[in-house]
Amino acid sequence: MRKFKAAEYKATHFDWKVDGKVATLTLNRPDRKNPLTFDSYGELRDLFENMVYADDVKAVIVTGSGGNFCSGGDVHEIIGPLTKMDMPELLEFTRMTGDAVRAMRNAPQPIIAAIDGICAGAGTMLGCAADIRLGTARSKVAFLFVRVGLAGADMGACTLLPRLIGLSRAAELLYTGRAMGGEESERVGYYNSLHAPEELLDAANKLAHSLANGPTFGHAMTKKMLWQEWNHGLGECIEAEAQAQAICMQTKDFERAYVAFAAKQAPIFEGN
Amino acid sequence: MRKFKAAEYKATHFDWKVDGKVATLTLNRPDRKNPLTFDSYGELRDLFENMVYADDVKAVIVTGSGGNFCSGGDVHEIIGPLTKMDMPELLEFTRMTGDAVRAMRNAPQPIIAAIDGICAGAGTMLGCAADIRLGTARSKVAFLFVRVGLAGADMGACTLLPRLIGLSRAAELLYTGRAMGGEESERVGYYNSLHAPEELLDAANKLAHSLANGPTFGHAMTKKMLWQEWNHGLGECIEAEAQAQAICMQTKDFERAYVAFAAKQAPIFEGN
Amino acid sequence: MRKFKAAEYKATHFDWKVDGKVATLTLNRPDRKNPLTFDSYGELRDLFENMVYADDVKAVIVTGSGGNFCSGGDVHEIIGPLTKMDMPELLEFTRMTGDAVRAMRNAPQPIIAAIDGICAGAGTMLGCAADIRLGTARSKVAFLFVRVGLAGADMGACTLLPRLIGLSRAAELLYTGRAMGGEESERVGYYNSLHAPEELLDAANKLAHSLANGPTFGHAMTKKMLWQEWNHGLGECIEAEAQAQAICMQTKDFERAYVAFAAKQAPIFEGN
Repeated sequence: MRKFKAAEYKATHFDWKVDGKVATLTLNRPDRKNPLTFDSYGELRDLFENMVYADDVKAVIVTGSGGNFCSGGDVHEIIGPLTKMDMPELLEFTRMTGDAVRAMRNAPQPIIAAIDGICAGAGTMLGCAADIRLGTARSKVAFLFVRVGLAGADMGACTLLPRLIGLSRAAELLYTGRAMGGEESERVGYYNSLHAPEELLDAANKLAHSLANGPTFGHAMTKKMLWQEWNHGLGECIEAEAQAQAICMQTKDFERAYVAFAAKQAPIFEGN
Repeated sequence: MRKFKAAEYKATHFDWKVDGKVATLTLNRPDRKNPLTFDSYGELRDLFENMVYADDVKAVIVTGSGGNFCSGGDVHEIIGPLTKMDMPELLEFTRMTGDAVRAMRNAPQPIIAAIDGICAGAGTMLGCAADIRLGTARSKVAFLFVRVGLAGADMGACTLLPRLIGLSRAAELLYTGRAMGGEESERVGYYNSLHAPEELLDAANKLAHSLANGPTFGHAMTKKMLWQEWNHGLGECIEAEAQAQAICMQTKDFERAYVAFAAKQAPIFEGN
Repeated sequence: MRKFKAAEYKATHFDWKVDGKVATLTLNRPDRKNPLTFDSYGELRDLFENMVYADDVKAVIVTGSGGNFCSGGDVHEIIGPLTKMDMPELLEFTRMTGDAVRAMRNAPQPIIAAIDGICAGAGTMLGCAADIRLGTARSKVAFLFVRVGLAGADMGACTLLPRLIGLSRAAELLYTGRAMGGEESERVGYYNSLHAPEELLDAANKLAHSLANGPTFGHAMTKKMLWQEWNHGLGECIEAEAQAQAICMQTKDFERAYVAFAAKQAPIFEGN
């Protein structure tokens, strides 16, 4: 079976560090607030497509360096060239960016975005592609696409954002491109929780390690089913979960939990 | 036509009491915080499947005794035996639990969950299966599946919870299994409202009787359409409601409302 | 190609005023709190169906006169006659009202509802049909259908309201018909923001003109995709947006934004 050793991966266009079962991906061009480039989009897509075949890493943190998350597609390196492309080239680009989101949502590892400072444009969609978002009060979240003359429909924003924060608030943010502060981002449900800037990465690490030490076969099934049930009827979702959970009930982690409970101990999960 | 007399039903594995047009189902093993067992899951499913054919009861309250709602599947009576089952038996179990949710959502009566104390594991999904949830500040809501080594995909959680509270918050609760307090449960939209523990059942009764004395043919259509439109396009939903509401406009309750309004009186609805 | 000159349209059953690229539709029977009638429903549907072919107006405000938004279907002019209709006539009516919502959601212009005072029955659904809702603290929002003996399934309420404010809160409002105040309406996400009554229309105008001076080809695509992705899977939504955004990248507005940015100027968008 195809395997990918996440711990051995050497990233080119961002930082990638593996600590135990947790990988941390850090966008790392702090002087420009960590913009995305053609190369970094492509590497994001390829890396997360490979993560389907990784069994050494069980949770991923996505963050940015220098007090910012991500300023989105770089104006000079991306937007300039795009204005000169023909349709096949444009579609190749928009499919690449969308496929980065698709790959993040398809990877079996829960992804935690740790967001401080600027989170703008495509950066907001890396946030949406994560399963859980931790933020800071001083951060700014702006779905900027409209500000560069485009639609709010970018990388899945028109389906992901309404599911995260409701259609009403999503529409306003996508039409106006205005920046939400951290407290509003938490209030509407974009952020799961707020943290002091200096504690943000610690909180992300604590959560990621906790998930990575949990029943990771179950986590991967949860993530798969959240996608799988995106547009099914309620009855079909219930049947799908009956099958999914019956599969999980044949894992050893389920038995480990029962044995530990009976012995009044904390279970040690192994992800199988 | 098949009929079911809800007022005459004698429950075995929980309490079932009918007061006028309102039935109250009380999980009643307070010493264990009202766990579910193979038998009570099965009876829940069968009872709510029968409620499609009941015309004496028009609203249902689901609650627990002794200051707790439901602690979920019993560790000794359910989780232990499950660890020893083969796949056909496991699937029979997960389909039974899912079918309890399906039957609650398919019953034409609005269901109000009155939740105090512990609401955990499968208990949270009985909450999700209800139409309206009243809670207390001291209650704890925990989607515990992950704590016993399983996926968060249980009884429809991955479709129901995101629709109730948004995908962002749902994912975090399903991955971590952490307990939400009552105030958070209200803030995110799991609870519709908070009540003092000693007033919780009164509030549920007041609401249930109010609904049961309303246009219950219309209520049943509302409930049916909320399910029916789960995964339809916007245009198809609008046409479906044009048909549904035209049907309701031929009920006598619609005329009763008009006549009462013209006479400056409160309408008395009869559900036909 | 078929064209519709919105600025030249003379409305019969409400006010319609065009100021630059922004049209304001004002329900204008203040003595009755701006009820809808057979004629005004029909004109709403026809007008918004024509707006697909309008290129002079780029944003629409919907509001009411005399301190109220809309009291819904008029009891004497609508509900009375409906109680005497046969099924084909009823269905003609419910399709007309639903088609008003459909036409508002299908029009390419972002629609902003400015809501003060009473917003009840079908009025709430004109609100839901808008893209963005501005309200006042003193306003009252009541999905009243149940109070006249009908289902909450009216004009798309059972799909639109859950997407705007979550299924839990939507169900409670549709079953009970109770009035939400302005602050609750903002808290749950029905309103995007609250304004002082005397500043409400100014705020709506400011937002509408801002949108109308934005990349309106992109706005129309955002609106189209929010509908288009209503019931697609996540993967299909991402591909749909890759195509939609690639189209938008061939607009001149995208180039204008880049040129302006490089020159450190604000872009002037022209909607092409």
